[in-house]
Amino acid sequence: MSDSGNKAAIGLIGLGTMGSALALNIADNGYKIAVTNRTVSRVSEFINDAGELSEYLIGCDDIESFVASLQTPRAIIVMVPAGKPFDDQIEALKPYLDEGDTLIDAGNTNFHDTRRRDAELAADGFRFVGMGVSGGEEGARFGPSIMVGGPEESFKPIEPIINAIAAKYEGDPCAAHLGPDGAGHFVKTVHNGIEYADMQLIAEVWGILRDGQGKSAAEVGALFDRWNEGELKSYLVEITGKALGATDEATGKPVVDIILDRAGQKGTGRWTVIEALGLGQSASTIEAAVGARSWSAAKDVREAGAEILAVQPEGGPQVSEEDLADALLAARILAYAQGFDILTAASETYGWDLDMARVAEIWRAGCIIRSALLDDISAAFRGELPKGRLILAPAFAKRLVNGSAALRRVVASAAMNGQATPAFSAALAYFDTMRTARGTTDLVQAQRDFFGAHGFERVDQEGGGFHGPWALSAEDMNVSR
Amino acid sequence: MSDSGNKAAIGLIGLGTMGSALALNIADNGYKIAVTNRTVSRVSEFINDAGELSEYLIGCDDIESFVASLQTPRAIIVMVPAGKPFDDQIEALKPYLDEGDTLIDAGNTNFHDTRRRDAELAADGFRFVGMGVSGGEEGARFGPSIMVGGPEESFKPIEPIINAIAAKYEGDPCAAHLGPDGAGHFVKTVHNGIEYADMQLIAEVWGILRDGQGKSAAEVGALFDRWNEGELKSYLVEITGKALGATDEATGKPVVDIILDRAGQKGTGRWTVIEALGLGQSASTIEAAVGARSWSAAKDVREAGAEILAVQPEGGPQVSEEDLADALLAARILAYAQGFDILTAASETYGWDLDMARVAEIWRAGCIIRSALLDDISAAFRGELPKGRLILAPAFAKRLVNGSAALRRVVASAAMNGQATPAFSAALAYFDTMRTARGTTDLVQAQRDFFGAHGFERVDQEGGGFHGPWALSAEDMNVSR
Repeated sequence: MSDSGNKAAIGLIGLGTMGSALALNIADNGYKIAVTNRTVSRVSEFINDAGELSEYLIGCDDIESFVASLQTPRAIIVMVPAGKPFDDQIEALKPYLDEGDTLIDAGNTNFHDTRRRDAELAADGFRFVGMGVSGGEEGARFGPSIMVGGPEESFKPIEPIINAIAAKYEGDPCAAHLGPDGAGHFVKTVHNGIEYADMQLIAEVWGILRDGQGKSAAEVGALFDRWNEGELKSYLVEITGKALGATDEATGKPVVDIILDRAGQKGTGRWTVIEALGLGQSASTIEAAVGARSWSAAKDVREAGAEILAVQPEGGPQVSEEDLADALLAARILAYAQGFDILTAASETYGWDLDMARVAEIWRAGCIIRSALLDDISAAFRGELPKGRLILAPAFAKRLVNGSAALRRVVASAAMNGQATPAFSAALAYFDTMRTARGTTDLVQAQRDFFGAHGFERVDQEGGGFHGPWALSAEDMNVSR
Repeated sequence: MSDSGNKAAIGLIGLGTMGSALALNIADNGYKIAVTNRTVSRVSEFINDAGELSEYLIGCDDIESFVASLQTPRAIIVMVPAGKPFDDQIEALKPYLDEGDTLIDAGNTNFHDTRRRDAELAADGFRFVGMGVSGGEEGARFGPSIMVGGPEESFKPIEPIINAIAAKYEGDPCAAHLGPDGAGHFVKTVHNGIEYADMQLIAEVWGILRDGQGKSAAEVGALFDRWNEGELKSYLVEITGKALGATDEATGKPVVDIILDRAGQKGTGRWTVIEALGLGQSASTIEAAVGARSWSAAKDVREAGAEILAVQPEGGPQVSEEDLADALLAARILAYAQGFDILTAASETYGWDLDMARVAEIWRAGCIIRSALLDDISAAFRGELPKGRLILAPAFAKRLVNGSAALRRVVASAAMNGQATPAFSAALAYFDTMRTARGTTDLVQAQRDFFGAHGFERVDQEGGGFHGPWALSAEDMNVSR
């Protein structure tokens, strides 16, 4: 980069929670960064609060001075709300930019928008980077996982900064340029989808232990603490142990017990399910998690249901803690596998050539779904992978076969005891479908041909468009209309 | 209508399978209909094949004479492929139309497109009707279920024709104007989504009996024949019995056994799941069905999985035929209920004011999901319906409570015996979620607040945005980053 004297290496617009954290992270790594914000008073406030890091910060009160304070070619992180505000910000910036400058969207953006902006900005001679950042505010400040999409030449100049601020896994930065246009935001979306599934699986374990076995929050928290020492080691298991162990100051009760059971969501879970469907895949464990959050919002319906649908389930054996741990591990693998199935399909559809091993590697630290599994997933993708499917990788196939007995017992026990386990059930159904060479859609095809003459393929002949003997004789067969 | 002498009461463009069947149905009911087709030779062929019905048909070789042959204000059914061909056809027609003329789309169109076209055509002074038609080719020819959306004044002139060609349930036409713009196509989409779920549930029963209990196609077919005499009476159960009983001429084997287990799909199932997600609902049983079809396409993966994931499930008790019947009925009710939840949410979101009882009524005959249940569903929507939810209607709550024991045994048995039952499992999870006043998303909210400071509501105070004690002490708590 030129003009490196007093100019900033990078700029950032939008000093909200995530923008501020990213800016401080960049400054903390010794890079000079120019910052600005729509509400100008926020700029000086931010600089004042930055303490000794302020020497790396250049506060700017308007776009013109902000752009002028940057080394060229410029790199600008735009952290303003998604949608129209984002597009408006880009339009406001354009008159001040030069060909070859790069705009970076580090928010949770739908990758279709990223693809559109990439094309629009490229037509104007600008470069656009869609950058997925995971790890929450803490991650953004001290080391997130960073999934970059965009033109390769736009990543090179910012790569040292991105690597510096990213989380490290045994010294390796958890950041990578994964592919062009929307690749980074798509991978981040699927990351979040897997996060939804993992959180829901954990919540189902909590339900089984609380409602089925009368365990307290502290007892279940201690169990998660223990699990975090073994194969289940992961950020989400870790914070679950901490969260279940936390006490509410006002009441002295476990915090979790005073939280209303209505969950929010922001869109990435839904997007994952929607994209999976469009790609001919099914993210059924993620759908189960999205659905559970949606249903939780209907608290009044559930309260009425508890009375109107009161039923004493027949009951069945309760599962052991060991079974729950094994089932959680198996289901987690299956949720990851569905996520990677989606990534594989998207990579083919959009021509991204995603390196799945690298995706797994940059999820090993910094992000919400980091877990002990990811190192093995990365190795699986670098090794023999039949049909390109994670569940068929030797290391995971063995784990799944071993864990499936526990997964069966958990699903069967919950079904008999009346506890909702949509995500565990979906994971098991995926596993059993994928190990069944001869499935049951033969009958679905027969039905479709019967009522719609859609035709079918045969097991004993090439080609398609075969019809059953019903096609021409529905009336003879006296099928009522 | 004026000029009623020798002019046609209605017109139809596009003499494909469904268009031809609809045109013959209209002629069969004594209405004069003008027809045309892009490939002109098809017009005379169609008229020649129509036999004595040809006296009601006016074949036209071009758009100008076609439009001129219609009574005014004109009503024209457009049956050309979805997407650009459809929009192109509209543009080709426009110069010949007068204000107040009505175009009717009777295809399986995404309701977003219908809403767009409604708005565009209204701006030009034309009327647009989105008309869902269910029943396959046979239905279109002899009596389909017809779900109409569009401006009310556009329906009045065509109502006698629509009622005449529709299926009748005890004399009542299975056709209705359900609401403005996309209402008809949306209801048809959800109809198809329920159809997917019902077909998948039936396929899962087939799998349990074939793979778990060694039953032949003929035996299972006979069972469905018997079921069709009772509470499960429905078109899909009826044709399943017929289909499973059919023999392949070439091999002498049951037809179903020579059909390749790779299912196709056309989009309406996916659309239902996608719209449900967008509306904050979950069509989980429908997603299970869409997913099962998608996974079936990966035959090579399943064949590899049968070896690599070979596992001897621990096994458990097999279920009785009575349990399967009771579980199928309960799960079918739950799939319908999810469908009506989506309709309710869409009606609120789009301001359609859908009459759910009427929707159920016009599904009682002609369409693919017609079943003995629909009369009761209609009655439930006309009666007391706590929280507007079908599962809470007294008649259905009682059935669900009674049937849930069998549903539990089916899900648990399949889980233990290694048979994939994604739709049955999803239905049970929905039921158990909706009868659980205190769910497990308390923990999900705790996790979200822990890593993202998203805040939560409390059970003991009004308002939101509360935080747990972890928010400011993540570092003290030594949560690894």
